[in-house]
Amino acid sequence: MESLICNGVTWINIEPPTEKETEYLAQKFPFHPLDLDDTLSRIQRPKIDEYKDYLFLVFNFPWYRKDDRVLASSQLSVFIGRDYIVTLHKGDLKPLVKLFRECQIDKESLKEYLGQGSSFLLYRILDRLVDYCLPILNKVGGNIEDVEDNIFSDRQQGAIREISRLRRDIIVFRRIIWPMRAVIGSLEPRVRRFTGKDLEVYFGDTVDHVDKIWDGLDEYKEIIEGLSDTYNSLVSNRTNEVVRTLTIIATILLPVTVIASIYGMNIPLPFQDSDHSLLFVFLIMLAVIGGILFFLRRLRVI
Amino acid sequence: MESLICNGVTWINIEPPTEKETEYLAQKFPFHPLDLDDTLSRIQRPKIDEYKDYLFLVFNFPWYRKDDRVLASSQLSVFIGRDYIVTLHKGDLKPLVKLFRECQIDKESLKEYLGQGSSFLLYRILDRLVDYCLPILNKVGGNIEDVEDNIFSDRQQGAIREISRLRRDIIVFRRIIWPMRAVIGSLEPRVRRFTGKDLEVYFGDTVDHVDKIWDGLDEYKEIIEGLSDTYNSLVSNRTNEVVRTLTIIATILLPVTVIASIYGMNIPLPFQDSDHSLLFVFLIMLAVIGGILFFLRRLRVI
Amino acid sequence: MESLICNGVTWINIEPPTEKETEYLAQKFPFHPLDLDDTLSRIQRPKIDEYKDYLFLVFNFPWYRKDDRVLASSQLSVFIGRDYIVTLHKGDLKPLVKLFRECQIDKESLKEYLGQGSSFLLYRILDRLVDYCLPILNKVGGNIEDVEDNIFSDRQQGAIREISRLRRDIIVFRRIIWPMRAVIGSLEPRVRRFTGKDLEVYFGDTVDHVDKIWDGLDEYKEIIEGLSDTYNSLVSNRTNEVVRTLTIIATILLPVTVIASIYGMNIPLPFQDSDHSLLFVFLIMLAVIGGILFFLRRLRVI
Amino acid sequence: MESLICNGVTWINIEPPTEKETEYLAQKFPFHPLDLDDTLSRIQRPKIDEYKDYLFLVFNFPWYRKDDRVLASSQLSVFIGRDYIVTLHKGDLKPLVKLFRECQIDKESLKEYLGQGSSFLLYRILDRLVDYCLPILNKVGGNIEDVEDNIFSDRQQGAIREISRLRRDIIVFRRIIWPMRAVIGSLEPRVRRFTGKDLEVYFGDTVDHVDKIWDGLDEYKEIIEGLSDTYNSLVSNRTNEVVRTLTIIATILLPVTVIASIYGMNIPLPFQDSDHSLLFVFLIMLAVIGGILFFLRRLRVI
Amino acid sequence: MESLICNGVTWINIEPPTEKETEYLAQKFPFHPLDLDDTLSRIQRPKIDEYKDYLFLVFNFPWYRKDDRVLASSQLSVFIGRDYIVTLHKGDLKPLVKLFRECQIDKESLKEYLGQGSSFLLYRILDRLVDYCLPILNKVGGNIEDVEDNIFSDRQQGAIREISRLRRDIIVFRRIIWPMRAVIGSLEPRVRRFTGKDLEVYFGDTVDHVDKIWDGLDEYKEIIEGLSDTYNSLVSNRTNEVVRTLTIIATILLPVTVIASIYGMNIPLPFQDSDHSLLFVFLIMLAVIGGILFFLRRLRVI
Repeated sequence: MESLICNGVTWINIEPPTEKETEYLAQKFPFHPLDLDDTLSRIQRPKIDEYKDYLFLVFNFPWYRKDDRVLASSQLSVFIGRDYIVTLHKGDLKPLVKLFRECQIDKESLKEYLGQGSSFLLYRILDRLVDYCLPILNKVGGNIEDVEDNIFSDRQQGAIREISRLRRDIIVFRRIIWPMRAVIGSLEPRVRRFTGKDLEVYFGDTVDHVDKIWDGLDEYKEIIEGLSDTYNSLVSNRTNEVVRTLTIIATILLPVTVIASIYGMNIPLPFQDSDHSLLFVFLIMLAVIGGILFFLRRLRVI
Repeated sequence: MESLICNGVTWINIEPPTEKETEYLAQKFPFHPLDLDDTLSRIQRPKIDEYKDYLFLVFNFPWYRKDDRVLASSQLSVFIGRDYIVTLHKGDLKPLVKLFRECQIDKESLKEYLGQGSSFLLYRILDRLVDYCLPILNKVGGNIEDVEDNIFSDRQQGAIREISRLRRDIIVFRRIIWPMRAVIGSLEPRVRRFTGKDLEVYFGDTVDHVDKIWDGLDEYKEIIEGLSDTYNSLVSNRTNEVVRTLTIIATILLPVTVIASIYGMNIPLPFQDSDHSLLFVFLIMLAVIGGILFFLRRLRVI
Repeated sequence: MESLICNGVTWINIEPPTEKETEYLAQKFPFHPLDLDDTLSRIQRPKIDEYKDYLFLVFNFPWYRKDDRVLASSQLSVFIGRDYIVTLHKGDLKPLVKLFRECQIDKESLKEYLGQGSSFLLYRILDRLVDYCLPILNKVGGNIEDVEDNIFSDRQQGAIREISRLRRDIIVFRRIIWPMRAVIGSLEPRVRRFTGKDLEVYFGDTVDHVDKIWDGLDEYKEIIEGLSDTYNSLVSNRTNEVVRTLTIIATILLPVTVIASIYGMNIPLPFQDSDHSLLFVFLIMLAVIGGILFFLRRLRVI
Repeated sequence: MESLICNGVTWINIEPPTEKETEYLAQKFPFHPLDLDDTLSRIQRPKIDEYKDYLFLVFNFPWYRKDDRVLASSQLSVFIGRDYIVTLHKGDLKPLVKLFRECQIDKESLKEYLGQGSSFLLYRILDRLVDYCLPILNKVGGNIEDVEDNIFSDRQQGAIREISRLRRDIIVFRRIIWPMRAVIGSLEPRVRRFTGKDLEVYFGDTVDHVDKIWDGLDEYKEIIEGLSDTYNSLVSNRTNEVVRTLTIIATILLPVTVIASIYGMNIPLPFQDSDHSLLFVFLIMLAVIGGILFFLRRLRVI
Repeated sequence: MESLICNGVTWINIEPPTEKETEYLAQKFPFHPLDLDDTLSRIQRPKIDEYKDYLFLVFNFPWYRKDDRVLASSQLSVFIGRDYIVTLHKGDLKPLVKLFRECQIDKESLKEYLGQGSSFLLYRILDRLVDYCLPILNKVGGNIEDVEDNIFSDRQQGAIREISRLRRDIIVFRRIIWPMRAVIGSLEPRVRRFTGKDLEVYFGDTVDHVDKIWDGLDEYKEIIEGLSDTYNSLVSNRTNEVVRTLTIIATILLPVTVIASIYGMNIPLPFQDSDHSLLFVFLIMLAVIGGILFFLRRLRVI
């Protein structure tokens, strides 16, 4: 637990929250026990709980888990009152960690961020975290384009696995962003009372960014589904090509074997003793092959 | 039929309800005959029927049927008045059974649960039952991850069956949770009159939990559909690989057979009596194989 | 055309309606010509047409057409006024036919159904017809379970046909129920004026049943779509298994044929005259088979 | 351009509209230039533009283009004022052409259609055109049933092409009907001022018909999608059957060839000179075939 | 940065905007810094930001990127006040570039476009840009028809790639148009204050055009998805045909090889020395082929 003070505004950052910290908060602040429980429990839904003296906010933000390369959701709980803000998170959200360090080290930043009241600080924190979603979104977009290029040039199982992983990441990302739109959209009128200033332009800007991320995810979802279909079509088509090739090869080679086998039988055969027996046999083979190819073409198989 | 009394609040628990019990209730309480019928009939939809003196509530909760490993729905009917609560169910809902036993044995619990009025007892019952959905949801999530790992490593029919079962469980689970959201969401203002106390925070917390379960189910539904697609892509791809391998093997071995058959014919053949006849035959074979492989590569089949 | 009278309420049942009957109704009642046309025309949409003296109602109910085992829709037109109810249908709706017979034969039933006014009679008719949908729904559910068991045990074309038929039945059933929900849901306040009594509990109960049927159909729709996917996955998987088996058999038998063909050539061959020539040939065969199997396993094809 | 007058109501029919006609209208009527442009341009969206003295209406109706058997959309533009109606279209809409001819020839019809004011004439025109959609819808339905019968009996490419065409027709049909529902539904209160009479029953009837067509299209859309899935399942299943058959044939015939090839080698072989050598060879063949079949059955491939 | 003045209305066109230009605007106009940032940043969502003295508008319009034949989105930012309009874009939107050139060169056009106030100029700019979407839409439609013709006549991979590209273009196009509908639809009442004139008919016309484009995209989306399905069905069907042909060929040729191999064995065989041995062998071959074909037909495989 670390804290910063500037212009009468306190920012307490708890990373990660444990029972010890929530007990401390329970003593110092008038927070509802259910809310303190929520900061400790497994991932909650984003929400705004409004009380007389403070707001309790829960947000989820995406981050890339390095060890298994999977997009995961990390919870940020915020208590905001007139002269304080308490942020509780597991330390996975780099932009927030960086912002707090910045304010610790640099007096200028401290004044810029905390000096305009708790609501403005909340806006700065959310803005940073929402903006951090954009590089993640762009990485997803870049991966989609890689897959798109790959499936038309190459046929390894890697593409399926990559499509499956991207699909899952997009599903998880959408589940994170979707409930956050409503929460951030309805935040401004509720935090205004702590500042008195009109922050609508600022929070409106953040809502625009969230909407843009949502639009991008929607587009990527449709594109990845289309790519999955395209991949399947390509595989079907390739199987078709291969089977047709096999059929053509079999059609040409089998009759030769058949005629050769017949002439390998240990029984008397016509033209066997002729001087041109080999030529004669080859002519029979060509006739049979030609007949079958003609037949296949008429059936439009090859 | 068993009952508990504490601070003037009576909790009657009927497990399972039969006509005998409903007749008893009809005599003692002013319940509408249609409602008493509903407690006996096959699974009803969740609903709130409001009367002057009491509320009739129907809920459905999920449980895992052990014998066929299938997620099923179990009905809980509740009559709630100012000073009583009547719960009717088939005994499948373990958390409710356990809660009632707890209150029977332990005076402390009895006081804690019944002592704050019938509405609060209703909240405690619902909270327990909704929380019980979470481990079921997590089990579904765990099974999905197992399937995800399996389909990339292994090719047995087991994966299809498992995907099909998970899909069905998720469909059934969603059908149970969906109508319950509306019912639990609109419950608080209607039960307030029995207690007078503001229970909004508590019921709001339960609604949050139901919403979270719904979100999780939505996510799982999309993931399992994606996995089903991925599995199909993998199978298509494997079939493609196998057919291509078969084609390559056939392409290499068939020409050898063909040339060997030709040299097995009982007719005079060129080079037959040469000292290097075998070498000569092998060269022809290599030439034919090479020609076909070159041709296939140009067609981009292999 | 038959009619029943009791307590001043007349029930006219027309089965099936023809122009003769509609002309008779036009003379006796103040019905709008467009409505009388609707009773004769092909299946209409469910609707309520409100007039000063009467309501004109159209409903569609499902029934199983025996001859082609297909779920079809049958129209019921109802004119309801203060002291009369006119039902027009083709006689496909058994519960309605039975109800009318019951009232003809049994004085008790007649009094019970007609004695409480035309609105209550309407409720009883609708309740019977809606309840009749439940066994149809259960039959669909049972058929789905049969298909589910079949596709994992057996591979005949029957399953496809059965899935296709169930899908169609569910589509038709949903189209019948969907518009009826709105009509039945808005019926109670409009018929109240003919009776004066509050029938909200009764019509509410019917709406609950319709909603339950709708929920069930929704669930079945998702399940049958899932089963269709599962079936396709199973077929793909089986094809994959078969092709792999074919490849393995070809891989083992073709090299044997190839070596044997080579030793069948009419040219001098190495070891041909050795005492252990056969053993030697078998060793070559085993070496070639082993090499190809090793190669396939490395490619992860088998 | 032709016109009819009766009871002070003028009906001007322009078929097809060109710039000459729109200039004439611009002189005679107070029509907005944008509206006159719309009557000439390519297919517009259905809409109602309300002005002080007149309404400008655009409708689209479906028709079967004979030359390529495709469902297309044809535009009808209508200007309606107190004492006139101007219809502009390309002459593709047969019921409208026929209605105008009828009024030209037959005094009775003229009086019936124009005698009750411009709003009633509009209703008659729309009613005719909407009713004309029903045979088109029924034709689509009939084609779907044909396809359904075909795919279970036969395997030609024709079925795919037919499913694809029906799907496209249904998509186009839906796009025509969808925006028209809103337009026709909101028409009645706006045209009432030209007549004074209450035409709600009449326009309501037309809305019912449009809704019914929409319901039918929705149902057909789901059915054709189901049929497309069913067709794909059938093809997959047939491929599976064929491949299995090929495997079984190969399994029986290949071992025979192998053993025969071995006994065709030009090296000393066991039992070669026995009296029962042929019987002995056949026994080996049967043993090998039996072994492979036993093996396949255990793997559940056949 | 170029500007035009006429009747007191200034049109400043910045193409492309850089920090230098936004600094200049910041000095001359009362624009909010967040808005000026938005004009420079990567693609924004369409939106209307309303201020006391001006509106800030963002639009996205589609254009075909020549180098990779992909539909892309290009941003247009507009500041509009009582007597000025500032347009900022990257120069990709040809109709806007052309409109500005036209006004620079031609006094008539200048007066026509700028002379009626800033709101009317905005309408003219939007109208041009929206109309420019129509040829793009028609090109997509034309490409769809080409693909539709191709897939029934030809089987190259090109069709998959083309379907995939069209799908992506339609997804991107829809994402561009969708948020623009709301923005353009709500524009008229907000710009009216700058002109005082009622421009509802004009902006309403533009909204109609946007809606029409949306309808077209919706239709194309459904059609291309249908075509993708159709293509897959065709490929499956062709694979089925090819495999069946291969099976039939194998069925006819394999038995011949088998019998010939048997008669090639170096052991005594029946009829070997008969005069009609060849005829006898051929009869056996025909009998075996006939038997297998009969068997396959009974299984309905061929």
